[in-house]
Amino acid sequence: MANVSIIEGFQPKNDPVLLEKAESLKPELKVTTLTGSRMGEEKALKEGDQVRFDFGNHQVGYVTLHLSHQGSHPDAPAFIKLKFAERAEEMDEDSSEYEGWISRGWIQEEWLHIDQLPAEVRLPRRYAFRYIQIDVLATSLKYQLKVDRVTCEAVSAVSMEDLSEPLQTEDELLKKIDQVSIRTLMNCMQDVFEDGPKRDRRLWIGDLRLQAKANYKTFKNYDLVKRCLYLFAGSRFPDGRVSANIFTDGEVEADDSYLADYALFFVPLLAEYYAETKDQEALDDLYGIAMEQIDIVMRQVGEDGVVKDGENGFWCFIDGDDEGDAEKEGGNGFWCFIDWNNEINKQASFQGILIYSLRYALKLAQEKQDAKRIGMCRGAIELLVKGAKEKLFDKEEMVFVSGKARQVSTASQAWMVLAQVFDQETNRKILRAIREKGLPYHMATPYMMHHYCEALIQSGEKEEAMKVIKGYWGKMIEMGADTFWETFNPEDPEESPYGGSMVNSYCHAWSCTPAYLLREYEF
Amino acid sequence: MANVSIIEGFQPKNDPVLLEKAESLKPELKVTTLTGSRMGEEKALKEGDQVRFDFGNHQVGYVTLHLSHQGSHPDAPAFIKLKFAERAEEMDEDSSEYEGWISRGWIQEEWLHIDQLPAEVRLPRRYAFRYIQIDVLATSLKYQLKVDRVTCEAVSAVSMEDLSEPLQTEDELLKKIDQVSIRTLMNCMQDVFEDGPKRDRRLWIGDLRLQAKANYKTFKNYDLVKRCLYLFAGSRFPDGRVSANIFTDGEVEADDSYLADYALFFVPLLAEYYAETKDQEALDDLYGIAMEQIDIVMRQVGEDGVVKDGENGFWCFIDGDDEGDAEKEGGNGFWCFIDWNNEINKQASFQGILIYSLRYALKLAQEKQDAKRIGMCRGAIELLVKGAKEKLFDKEEMVFVSGKARQVSTASQAWMVLAQVFDQETNRKILRAIREKGLPYHMATPYMMHHYCEALIQSGEKEEAMKVIKGYWGKMIEMGADTFWETFNPEDPEESPYGGSMVNSYCHAWSCTPAYLLREYEF
Repeated sequence: MANVSIIEGFQPKNDPVLLEKAESLKPELKVTTLTGSRMGEEKALKEGDQVRFDFGNHQVGYVTLHLSHQGSHPDAPAFIKLKFAERAEEMDEDSSEYEGWISRGWIQEEWLHIDQLPAEVRLPRRYAFRYIQIDVLATSLKYQLKVDRVTCEAVSAVSMEDLSEPLQTEDELLKKIDQVSIRTLMNCMQDVFEDGPKRDRRLWIGDLRLQAKANYKTFKNYDLVKRCLYLFAGSRFPDGRVSANIFTDGEVEADDSYLADYALFFVPLLAEYYAETKDQEALDDLYGIAMEQIDIVMRQVGEDGVVKDGENGFWCFIDGDDEGDAEKEGGNGFWCFIDWNNEINKQASFQGILIYSLRYALKLAQEKQDAKRIGMCRGAIELLVKGAKEKLFDKEEMVFVSGKARQVSTASQAWMVLAQVFDQETNRKILRAIREKGLPYHMATPYMMHHYCEALIQSGEKEEAMKVIKGYWGKMIEMGADTFWETFNPEDPEESPYGGSMVNSYCHAWSCTPAYLLREYEF
Repeated sequence: MANVSIIEGFQPKNDPVLLEKAESLKPELKVTTLTGSRMGEEKALKEGDQVRFDFGNHQVGYVTLHLSHQGSHPDAPAFIKLKFAERAEEMDEDSSEYEGWISRGWIQEEWLHIDQLPAEVRLPRRYAFRYIQIDVLATSLKYQLKVDRVTCEAVSAVSMEDLSEPLQTEDELLKKIDQVSIRTLMNCMQDVFEDGPKRDRRLWIGDLRLQAKANYKTFKNYDLVKRCLYLFAGSRFPDGRVSANIFTDGEVEADDSYLADYALFFVPLLAEYYAETKDQEALDDLYGIAMEQIDIVMRQVGEDGVVKDGENGFWCFIDGDDEGDAEKEGGNGFWCFIDWNNEINKQASFQGILIYSLRYALKLAQEKQDAKRIGMCRGAIELLVKGAKEKLFDKEEMVFVSGKARQVSTASQAWMVLAQVFDQETNRKILRAIREKGLPYHMATPYMMHHYCEALIQSGEKEEAMKVIKGYWGKMIEMGADTFWETFNPEDPEESPYGGSMVNSYCHAWSCTPAYLLREYEF
């Protein structure tokens, strides 16, 4: 399934004042220059030869090839193919076999002619990688190519020196999980909080929320969070909705993709940022926009206190009126994310996210002493909690159900627990019930896994949460991860939501949360 | 057969004074900006689509793609493949099928990722082409690529405004042949006289001599000829030999390839340049080097007045001593070029070239009033003419023979005629005899064909020469040539000396000589 939305003639509504504030907060990237280690013996290369370099850890940056020759004066261009791999396994993959629905343009390969040797060839594009493989497609009978060195100017908005404090633990696996989490976060912190430095490379709100949480516990780069909040606020849908993501290459421009859960996350994002910083300017500038996101979604709540479910298991709407209709914009119903498991019915999860967001909206309203809004939030929470309990909860099975088919998924339970529909004791029972069912509708991403973990912790199941952290994130480390991955199914590590793992991102922001969980909650 | 010479640890002997003079004569290239015509309808392109542009004539220059998009904001890099074609047919060729011995690095293709749209992508490399084909390898489901325009900054040391005078003829085919010759010459006139702007792209002395001749009749750019003479003189083999070609990318450096015929051509090159310009400085600087080339080759002449023939039909030597031995440097015996027909035994042709060069050496010696050298030249000519007549001429058949096997080739006759071994009347008979034999050992290149034409003209067979010009160069035009080709066998147009026509050069300097022949000799 291709999860794309396309709106003909879409023009986001840009607010120059907000965007100017965002621009003023643009970080100057920190550059570290590294040299790759040659894998295998050094030798001059002829057609058909290959050389690989290892940069020791996951890097994001600009690569320079230091090339010379052996033999006669080169009488023809050298022709090489470069491959950048986040994991060693990727070097052995054949990109011509990729047949997924996401653009093959993301596969990190280049074909290059070098007319003159010696040469320092600085590639103009940025790559995310640990390994570089160079295949020599042509030299000539008169000379061989020598790759003397490969260097990388690694970039990030932060550096390890900015790190506030190390994790207090004696557990070697947890130390390693924390280090890899921090590396993941650091490599995604660029001009904005990127979702992944290999693919997409842009600001998604679902990722941003988790990155911000981890950042508050580690690098504490508040300006970058603020910049991203202003970017989302500064370029929105014409009807005021916050977009799922923002393009910041060239002119700032909201994508024409709306995800209802992501838009709601603007509220906890702002509330948590304010809680950390007490930044009154940001609160004043962005409060109205946050509340607007709630209001837009509340129009989709029925009198029974339940959000409407969409066709094919997706809850969706387009134009803010009551006629939720995925068909209007392509019919794929991709208006709420939840997780990269397309089998999940999203109604209950989304109900949970709406209640969760309303609790943050209430906090913001209290900060603003906005009595009317405080009342609205309280009323909405009461209505939605009641609806959740009465319409979406199976008392016999002690689990939440979702959609017409009353689907029981892990995601639904996690979000209803985080929404605090019930008290801690009941929440614990719910999560035990779903564990006993074998965690149905598997969680495909560290993103969903994070929410499940936090739900466990908040319902007093810290030990179980620790098992998940060590079992899930620990498993990636066991499999050689230098940074955590966008999607990971331990039962099927090559699983990809895109139809081919070659376009998976193996350094993905939303997987960095152990750095937050291990510091926020005392294990 | 791979015709390459490789000398381990070769270091040319560079003369800074001569090279500085060469540098001071480096031309400033003239730039003309052109826009390609779209072939087929304009449309936005998705994965798998293709678009072609036609620049109306053969161009040498730097290309800029003017790109934009249609649909949503691009959410993935566009990935395209570019192909530059001198002839329309090349666009349909599949470079993965190339299996020749010359580097596939010469095939004019690029693979390119474009991270941001709109974009003006100026490709850093220079191409030789009339057509550009763009294949879209990836966009995404959200957008299509638009190629709004493709422009080219065409470059040459000369422009059509520099042209001295048009050819005086009413014959439309001759006019066309002349125009195409001039275009070929112009597009090969860059920082130096290049052999071909697609492949090799460097200064070869065999090409230079013919380019200079055509240039004297057309653009009259004497400085560029002088620059090239100084480059050959300024970077030579350690023993003083003039190299077959010079690299001028980066530091000037003679190639480690010696071709005895090419080295001798330094002599007529200098003599003709002096005849055109009366440039005393050049004569004084370069006279000694010219004479040295004669002396080196004369050591290979036996007491019988015949140049020694090498193994496998090649006459060769390496280190200036009497032990001609191709085996010493790889054994391919590529020490004398003559033509891209490897079946030709080169002894007789080379004997002709030596006599031909000695006649120019004599002229130079007379200009310098160098009595000793005048005597030496006269003696050498006498010895070699006698040797040619007695040992290499078959009186019965009225043809020259070459090598142990007494091979009768067209090339041998052409060069012996140009050497004026016999008088005009006998020369005419020789050329008639070889025509009657069906011009054995076919001439593979316009380079050899030029010498055959000039031999015809000089022996009074102008009509026959005209037939060749119209039949051979005219045939290329009939086949769509915008510029004349490096190699052309009308019986087998796809013939390539390199094992694949994909690396053939379709704008090649040595094919430009009709512009000279049609002006020099009154037809």
